[in-house]
Amino acid sequence: MVKSLAVERAGSSAIRDLLEITERPGVVSLAGGLPNPATFPVEALARASAAALAEDPLVALQYGPTEGYRPLRRWVADRVGPGAGGPTTEEQVLVTSGSQQALELLTRALVDPGGLVALADPAYVGALQAFRAAGAELAAIPADADGMRVDVLADRLAAGERPALVYVVANFDNPSGSTLSRERRHALAQLADRYGFWIVDDDPYGELRWNGTAPVALRTLTDRTITLGSTSKVLAPGLRVGWAVAPLEVRRSMAILKQSADLHTSALTQQVVHRTLAEPGFLDQHLATLRTTYRAQADHLVGALHQVLGDRLAVARPDGGMFLWAALLDPTADTAALLAPAVEQGVAFVPGAAFGVEQLHPTRLRLSFATADPAGLDLAVARLAGVIPVP
Amino acid sequence: MVKSLAVERAGSSAIRDLLEITERPGVVSLAGGLPNPATFPVEALARASAAALAEDPLVALQYGPTEGYRPLRRWVADRVGPGAGGPTTEEQVLVTSGSQQALELLTRALVDPGGLVALADPAYVGALQAFRAAGAELAAIPADADGMRVDVLADRLAAGERPALVYVVANFDNPSGSTLSRERRHALAQLADRYGFWIVDDDPYGELRWNGTAPVALRTLTDRTITLGSTSKVLAPGLRVGWAVAPLEVRRSMAILKQSADLHTSALTQQVVHRTLAEPGFLDQHLATLRTTYRAQADHLVGALHQVLGDRLAVARPDGGMFLWAALLDPTADTAALLAPAVEQGVAFVPGAAFGVEQLHPTRLRLSFATADPAGLDLAVARLAGVIPVP
Repeated sequence: MVKSLAVERAGSSAIRDLLEITERPGVVSLAGGLPNPATFPVEALARASAAALAEDPLVALQYGPTEGYRPLRRWVADRVGPGAGGPTTEEQVLVTSGSQQALELLTRALVDPGGLVALADPAYVGALQAFRAAGAELAAIPADADGMRVDVLADRLAAGERPALVYVVANFDNPSGSTLSRERRHALAQLADRYGFWIVDDDPYGELRWNGTAPVALRTLTDRTITLGSTSKVLAPGLRVGWAVAPLEVRRSMAILKQSADLHTSALTQQVVHRTLAEPGFLDQHLATLRTTYRAQADHLVGALHQVLGDRLAVARPDGGMFLWAALLDPTADTAALLAPAVEQGVAFVPGAAFGVEQLHPTRLRLSFATADPAGLDLAVARLAGVIPVP
Repeated sequence: MVKSLAVERAGSSAIRDLLEITERPGVVSLAGGLPNPATFPVEALARASAAALAEDPLVALQYGPTEGYRPLRRWVADRVGPGAGGPTTEEQVLVTSGSQQALELLTRALVDPGGLVALADPAYVGALQAFRAAGAELAAIPADADGMRVDVLADRLAAGERPALVYVVANFDNPSGSTLSRERRHALAQLADRYGFWIVDDDPYGELRWNGTAPVALRTLTDRTITLGSTSKVLAPGLRVGWAVAPLEVRRSMAILKQSADLHTSALTQQVVHRTLAEPGFLDQHLATLRTTYRAQADHLVGALHQVLGDRLAVARPDGGMFLWAALLDPTADTAALLAPAVEQGVAFVPGAAFGVEQLHPTRLRLSFATADPAGLDLAVARLAGVIPVP
């Protein structure tokens, strides 16, 4: 027996195979959520790595605590700032092997098989996988340009549904790009306090805002929030360093599971990350560069789509993040069926169906503006024009 | 609800609290399986890290494949050599965040909750945690100086027990230090073929042999073997790079679970490990240094124990590995009760009960000779003399 229940649940979709074809050579990919590699702070990371191995090699190379490298935990606690219950302490921080691991650990810590997780439909594929692998049942809540329809969630709670946790990407959602509105954040926090569920606020994109200001953070509204962060979009994903900031009891349960999952996250990469983030002036300057770069790429892609495909596709100009959630104007279009011909033309995207919880989102496609430079984006749009139907 | 079933199962022992006290300042610890930090190849790792970020930063810093960095997978396949079914291919290798992660992924891939895992009693604490967190039932098989009593396993199989997997540390077991004999390896492989269970051969210590030659590897006897390897004892544990070498169908199932567990292991540390291991001449020379160091430390500790505590404690001279599995000669001794007074005296060990599956091993203690240098080992033995009872 090679396919356990866990494997069946986690691997129950054909998405993986679908996405593998987007990595063919010669394909301009708008599919993955890959940062533009030109933004990687290679020199800062090389300095940090050299310093870690020269100045503190025994901490970088020996076994370390499951909860994480203490200076990094302290940095995270300071950065996320106070929550609803007062100051955030480093004890509330668990460093994880990317925020994907935090997602999996907290699901296993908070949801027994058969338990309910509520989330917007469409939703991040990695979250769907983690929830399904844990045997969770999914409650799909509709969403619009202001994020999850919290009023619909409220109705379903009133009708008796009892999720153990509610998952949101409140800032620049993946895939929809939407930001949960201020009003909905307040409403969601009140529901959490009233019904006793946990809010998971998965926040890899919050720092990538170049327009407007973020609505109030969920964690300042209720102490039933677990906030996930990551260095993948801010430094580099290959480091695999993320974190959860959670109430102590939740953080402790997650650490128990992390101990048997991988003992601890690489002490070397944790120290490299901490030294880089703590270098005076580095982060502000680097975030400014990222925002400028991604804003330019987003504007470029939206402009090209409007110009070349404006009669076939609707797309909004984002204030941050990495993704456009484009809608084909032909109501009979099926983006899942368009992917193979698109890859033939040398361009890739992720069809809406990949993110479907209950809905298939057949006219939707997720386009990442983060990976390719303007020339690549132009090429991608020209190639898309060969496959996107005229309504 | 913060304690899910998974947390309850994984955290069901008091061992964690017990072991935390062994980390008090001023305590000479023979408790953890920590390598002597003087053996860390800091300069080679610093060279590899600098080269990775200078020569191949986009691979070190971008998202990578879940299965692992291909050159490292190839190196592992070459290193472990051919298995029962012929040459080992890189496709059979999954790079993991330490071999602890491999253990957890394969358990979840192969054992449904309620499924049976057979293992020697005593057993490695991290394995017990991973099995219990997955909801496995444990079949404790007695063991002696030649490892698991495979004849007892055979009887239990004949009586109808059907483990999904059988876990062994065939080379220099943790905690017992025993090596599974040649005859038992053949017998175990035959049982696997006959009854269709998987053998997990967890092998972090096999390279640390300074005396004699290893018996035939299990994976050359049956293709129902999954071999786990690690850089933790050979390079440095803080890197968190390990691997599983498994039949393709098992490797694929593990990769599906790894994708939702952490996407992939740090691309930077994988490249650092590969560049270090592949540096011409490095590994042979480094292994020679490790063997010389650990042999000297083992001989020193055994000598000191014989000299100071020979009338109170029995211990065998090891041919490799990291651990002594000492037996107190007072049959009424309880090593779990001796730990707190020992820590008061400034010395720590792991009591036998920590490794118990069904048995409590009350007269046993695991002593690591790997961490401390000879002066530290002398100090530890002198302090142990203050608490070990005279029979």
